[in-house]
Amino acid sequence: MTPGVGPRAAAKLLERFGSVEGVFGARRAELESLRLRPEAIASILARDREAQAATEIERVRNLGADILLLDDGVYPSLLREIADPPITLYVSGAWEACFDQPCIALVGSRRCSTYGQNTALMLARDLAQRRVTIVSGLARGIDAAAHRGALEAGGKTVAVMGTGIDQVYPRDHKKLAQEILNNGGALVSEFPLETPPAPQNFPYRNRVISGLSLGVVLVEAAENSGSLITARLAMEQNREVFAVPGNITSRNSFGTNYLIKGAGAKLVQQWQDIVSELPSDIAATLLPPPLAEKEEKNLVEQLELVPGDLTATEHAVWKLLSPENPAHIDELALQSKLSVPQLTSALLALEMRELIRQLPGKSFVRKM
Amino acid sequence: MTPGVGPRAAAKLLERFGSVEGVFGARRAELESLRLRPEAIASILARDREAQAATEIERVRNLGADILLLDDGVYPSLLREIADPPITLYVSGAWEACFDQPCIALVGSRRCSTYGQNTALMLARDLAQRRVTIVSGLARGIDAAAHRGALEAGGKTVAVMGTGIDQVYPRDHKKLAQEILNNGGALVSEFPLETPPAPQNFPYRNRVISGLSLGVVLVEAAENSGSLITARLAMEQNREVFAVPGNITSRNSFGTNYLIKGAGAKLVQQWQDIVSELPSDIAATLLPPPLAEKEEKNLVEQLELVPGDLTATEHAVWKLLSPENPAHIDELALQSKLSVPQLTSALLALEMRELIRQLPGKSFVRKM
Repeated sequence: MTPGVGPRAAAKLLERFGSVEGVFGARRAELESLRLRPEAIASILARDREAQAATEIERVRNLGADILLLDDGVYPSLLREIADPPITLYVSGAWEACFDQPCIALVGSRRCSTYGQNTALMLARDLAQRRVTIVSGLARGIDAAAHRGALEAGGKTVAVMGTGIDQVYPRDHKKLAQEILNNGGALVSEFPLETPPAPQNFPYRNRVISGLSLGVVLVEAAENSGSLITARLAMEQNREVFAVPGNITSRNSFGTNYLIKGAGAKLVQQWQDIVSELPSDIAATLLPPPLAEKEEKNLVEQLELVPGDLTATEHAVWKLLSPENPAHIDELALQSKLSVPQLTSALLALEMRELIRQLPGKSFVRKM
Repeated sequence: MTPGVGPRAAAKLLERFGSVEGVFGARRAELESLRLRPEAIASILARDREAQAATEIERVRNLGADILLLDDGVYPSLLREIADPPITLYVSGAWEACFDQPCIALVGSRRCSTYGQNTALMLARDLAQRRVTIVSGLARGIDAAAHRGALEAGGKTVAVMGTGIDQVYPRDHKKLAQEILNNGGALVSEFPLETPPAPQNFPYRNRVISGLSLGVVLVEAAENSGSLITARLAMEQNREVFAVPGNITSRNSFGTNYLIKGAGAKLVQQWQDIVSELPSDIAATLLPPPLAEKEEKNLVEQLELVPGDLTATEHAVWKLLSPENPAHIDELALQSKLSVPQLTSALLALEMRELIRQLPGKSFVRKM
């Protein structure tokens, strides 16, 4: 609340004086040496926000919310790692449970296409079903679809706000914010109560969205979309950046295609593409658990089940493969009596459906 | 024409006996040591195709076409580099002029979407206008759109056929084949005259499409499309592989998105994305030539021209930048009186339109 003190100045003060008490006990000369704005120095010396801070804490408690501090031990650990984490974080709802799960941010244009909206919904649903927390910005368009997809799956979702947590923006998302709280989700903001939706707040909000998350998925973004800034921030924070491709003729996909082409964003076709890039210990908790030993027979039976939707040729080739013993392509050609091009085509189709895997030396195995 | 002798057996024979004359002068034991098929050995020893070959040459000449030999000095040099180049190549039309230009292949599904068709048309047109020869397979769908795009631009295009050059397949592409010939393009095939469209010929045809080209652009490809095989062949031939992204909900874009995601295909949004990956000496011949010295004043004037379609903020930022002296972002913030987020957003928008370039250390210059 101190005028002229944002997250960077606050970090500088804490670093210099060791604690909040230290900052408010500092002498004028010491504060001046940090090149703070004059109004910040005046306010700190006068301790003129103390009463206001006490009221703020009281009001936050009455809302059933909480204020986390950078060094209080429960502050989200991923967010603490970024260059300029908020020193206070207002949280409402089941925030601890949300941050206990791996968090992935889904963001994109406010003005999105139906394609973008459906894609955000689908990815959020698929991820939330597997106990990933969906982080987004409560904005119109992609953000709202991401929150709703998580809710549809009965999963957790966190809305990071560019306003005070008591101010829902846009207003017609009040019901959505309430649903998020009612379903085990959380609202998060670094801004004091009653902070209105000032445009300059949103880029700060965006760094918290990516800061809370292992990775950021851009679903749709036009050429000069704010979401591209989020992607850039996420890269600077060393978070994984993903983007959903789209038709090159669609304005809404220009930004996402551009990120894949030029900025190293990973292309996403389905939820697995996101999970497979996460640290392996985290990915392992999300993918279906390996079957227990007593179910082994079922596993073998399951492997005998023919996956649906194969052509007769693909089916024949798939039947020739086993999950244990790699088969060489020449051997498969002999056994299947297919021409090499036909065989290659069938193998490629099976590989792309993730039913088989190619090993070095043109050998193939069935996947489990 | 020799039964049982394809490009690999032919290469083996030529390598062993040094010349076609040597092959036909070989003794049975020598031929048998190469593990050829019995019918091939019998045919070579009996020289039973000699008369047929003479007639073939005569008929090709009467068609106004020609047969190129692997070692005749005019055989397309890129094609000669692949592992199994055709030892004879039937060519019709202005093939020399076509292969004198850089060649890019555009291929994709026969059953394509309107999006795919329009994209193929646009990319072919844009490349052909800049004197790139468009190579494709004369098939329905993407192939036909690629040839037509090149023709629309008054450019050159080469159709690689899976039939004899006297057999157009599909038949209703006869008019297209004729237009290609009438407009400085060429038809190419490794198959003897009258070869019908047998399915096993097309994978051989595909390796010639990529073999003739510096790079292959996949415009649309479904999950088990033959175009994916072409892409894989092109990679094995060390050719650049490009793919046009599309909506993840479109079957026709599954294969292209997959190639970008998993196989290192380069994402294409526009023709420049293709040209920029070509060897720089070739790219330089395609991009607009630098202006002559006497036009220097015009160049300076031109740099003062404001690019259209900018927001007021972007325009203001663009005006602050010069093509010679990098401006640091802090300096720009000071001069523009914009907030850092606003400035970052405007810079990103200008960067994405390729109007400016970011240099290391958060400095920016205008592009020429």
